[in-house]
Amino acid sequence: MIQLPPLEANSGIPLYRQLYAGLRDAIQTGLLRQGDRIPPTRELAQLTGVNRATVAAAYDLLETEGLIRGHVGRGSFVLGNGAPRTREADLISFATSRPAEQLFPMHSFRATVNEVLNDPRLSSILQLGAPAGYAPLRRWLRESSGLATPGDEVLVTSGCQQALDLIQRALLAPGDTVLVEDPVYPGLKNVFERGRLRLVPMPVDAGHVDPAQVERAIATERPKLIVVTPDFQNPTGASMPVETRRRIALAAGQARVPIVEIDLYRDLRYEGDPLPTLKELAPGTDVLLLRSFSKIAFPGLRVGWVLGPQPLLARLTEAKQWADLHSDQLSQAILLRFAESGRLQQHLQQMIAAGRECLLAAMAGCERELPPGTRFTRPQGGMNLWVTLPAPLDATELLQAAEREGLTYLPGKHFQIEAPAGGQLRLSFAGLPAASISTGLAALGRAVRAELERLRLTAPSPDTAMV
Amino acid sequence: MIQLPPLEANSGIPLYRQLYAGLRDAIQTGLLRQGDRIPPTRELAQLTGVNRATVAAAYDLLETEGLIRGHVGRGSFVLGNGAPRTREADLISFATSRPAEQLFPMHSFRATVNEVLNDPRLSSILQLGAPAGYAPLRRWLRESSGLATPGDEVLVTSGCQQALDLIQRALLAPGDTVLVEDPVYPGLKNVFERGRLRLVPMPVDAGHVDPAQVERAIATERPKLIVVTPDFQNPTGASMPVETRRRIALAAGQARVPIVEIDLYRDLRYEGDPLPTLKELAPGTDVLLLRSFSKIAFPGLRVGWVLGPQPLLARLTEAKQWADLHSDQLSQAILLRFAESGRLQQHLQQMIAAGRECLLAAMAGCERELPPGTRFTRPQGGMNLWVTLPAPLDATELLQAAEREGLTYLPGKHFQIEAPAGGQLRLSFAGLPAASISTGLAALGRAVRAELERLRLTAPSPDTAMV
Repeated sequence: MIQLPPLEANSGIPLYRQLYAGLRDAIQTGLLRQGDRIPPTRELAQLTGVNRATVAAAYDLLETEGLIRGHVGRGSFVLGNGAPRTREADLISFATSRPAEQLFPMHSFRATVNEVLNDPRLSSILQLGAPAGYAPLRRWLRESSGLATPGDEVLVTSGCQQALDLIQRALLAPGDTVLVEDPVYPGLKNVFERGRLRLVPMPVDAGHVDPAQVERAIATERPKLIVVTPDFQNPTGASMPVETRRRIALAAGQARVPIVEIDLYRDLRYEGDPLPTLKELAPGTDVLLLRSFSKIAFPGLRVGWVLGPQPLLARLTEAKQWADLHSDQLSQAILLRFAESGRLQQHLQQMIAAGRECLLAAMAGCERELPPGTRFTRPQGGMNLWVTLPAPLDATELLQAAEREGLTYLPGKHFQIEAPAGGQLRLSFAGLPAASISTGLAALGRAVRAELERLRLTAPSPDTAMV
Repeated sequence: MIQLPPLEANSGIPLYRQLYAGLRDAIQTGLLRQGDRIPPTRELAQLTGVNRATVAAAYDLLETEGLIRGHVGRGSFVLGNGAPRTREADLISFATSRPAEQLFPMHSFRATVNEVLNDPRLSSILQLGAPAGYAPLRRWLRESSGLATPGDEVLVTSGCQQALDLIQRALLAPGDTVLVEDPVYPGLKNVFERGRLRLVPMPVDAGHVDPAQVERAIATERPKLIVVTPDFQNPTGASMPVETRRRIALAAGQARVPIVEIDLYRDLRYEGDPLPTLKELAPGTDVLLLRSFSKIAFPGLRVGWVLGPQPLLARLTEAKQWADLHSDQLSQAILLRFAESGRLQQHLQQMIAAGRECLLAAMAGCERELPPGTRFTRPQGGMNLWVTLPAPLDATELLQAAEREGLTYLPGKHFQIEAPAGGQLRLSFAGLPAASISTGLAALGRAVRAELERLRLTAPSPDTAMV
């Protein structure tokens, strides 16, 4: 066994971090080599005099960084000196539409949890709950939404993803037609494809969907459901003009087709005035409004909700019960307290300020770094923008070169319903510091220019005979 | 508006409780009558000088007790003076298989949460996570189970209910045959019936299933899956003898049929020696072991898990991702800390001591209070026992009389796969104090005797001509 530096209890550096650093150094300096077995947590705990949880935490970090890998019953082994994986961890990732961890208001979060711990209802929060969700949260969501009409109910779901899954299971049957935006969030596309639904695309560009095309599709395709994301659509960032909202809501209502309105990003508006929801614009239409705390608070707490008419909600609630009985109640109580106490609003102000800065950095970076012929959307909020590379570039083929330059993203094919053109990609900017966005887009610019140059050199010479 | 008694900030009674009591008294003394509108939370908050959350908490309590009902956009109205609902709340409920809230170790829980709040990984716990679950929890579950073999993985699910749902969705297709215990947990029956599976019952009695019958069914029915609950089966409380476990595990392995082993109650053994799992008895058989913190800790935190071979787990994990991305991470981190710190073990000791007392009270009560001809199981652990009433009593028909006497339970039909005989019911005893169990069973005895007497009096007279 190799010698690790002694652990210092009072250094201010947590013991698991010290242990992690010692092992990482041993691997990186070659004292431990690929394939070497590292001791089981129990053994190292005894050797170092710390508890097993501390050793396990150090191993978790090493495993996360790709330095070791555990095999049940055989122990953990060194994978390598970490050079390639560390590099991967260094990539600037535009790949995930999620809030920045460094913005999480940890002080408010801790204060909120402590209030919940002192709530006289705590023991009932920890007991088995109701399928529709924690009653005080449901009440608050309904009252505070400003959007509930008589007869509306709230169902708490484990994030918006579960709401989509329950809708597919409870309201639709294989073969049913659904109008969906194209491109669209992969979690929606995947759930609906697994439910063997027939997806009819509504193409989205910078101006969002074409209302006339949607009206025609409602008339001719006989959809069972229409799914729209009016504000800062994922992946395009596009927002639907009020007139489009009104026309779709009315056309759906006349045809008695329910609308699923995905409303995750509305609170993250950095520019311009808020626009009404489809739900508000057509009171006679059945609208299921899908919201979540994931984009505006803490995505690790899985709390989203559906607001909509009781008869549809009853079917979703039954499906919810058999899917997982109910959502986690502690997180529901924490997020209720976070919202009720005003801390959520306070945090939102900071997210909006930071988000605006990220969005500006992303648009300026695209403008500055990407060659002529590139197009990109100019969202007024949310977390994503959509880039169309100059032909004949393909975003999937470009990805390797981009990762060599130091960034990663999701190619458009993950979002597209119809055969993808290939030249598109999503940049999720909200999880990154503005400086990283600029650095990342400079790297993307280099990758794009190099790839264009390579294609120019390898293109068939125009004077080759076409035989 | 009626006059409420003044609220006292330093009385030691929470303000929402004082407000609740004032309104309840006003309803019960007739100052507020059925159909009267009570003020919106905002208005009453202003009138009383407390914040809206306090008013909302008071309204929640009133609504829970059936005294008021809120209508979105119209306000809340008095439903009645609560006489019938208060009575329902007073029922001794044997209806739910869950731990007793009064046993929750609130002090340890708060200490655990505080440790998680100080964990340097907290912000990453609050960020979006991995579909398979929080890595440190998965590692701990695998290492501490003592049951993982090389190639086994862990998937964290939102309780055991979700594990059953994912298994149905990812591993089975409509029309597939599954062998299930009869009677069985309704959450399993319901999920599998919704998945349009063909359920072949394995009858359970006090000695659990008949291994010879199961072996024959494996050979003749060509099942795609076998689901068993070897320890303290829900609803019967029956435990499977070792020899039955071994024979089923071997027969399944030889026929290459995976086993789902529901292992929720094993830790709650009050008498006798622990028995090995099917997973241990047949290393060559694919076994998915389903476990959960719900029965041994806090059911409001939705954390269960599946331990099993990687290829099956990979399919479940993919289904999990599209169902809800991943389970709540804060609860995963809290339960990990609760377990790692030794507090779970400590709590389990108390649950076992209390559970033994409840079980003894339940068996003694059945013995003492129920008339000759009644049969009931004698479990060695868990939360449930199964009663067969003397013919011709029907448990569903008896329920109204039982509720008039002061108790409630679930009739056997909710658990039965084949056409139910009607005379059976489940008594879930673990959520109740021993004294309530005795009182409840005395009440059941009265209801049973009265019903038998009524049936005797209304039975067709034997000398009526049968024409």
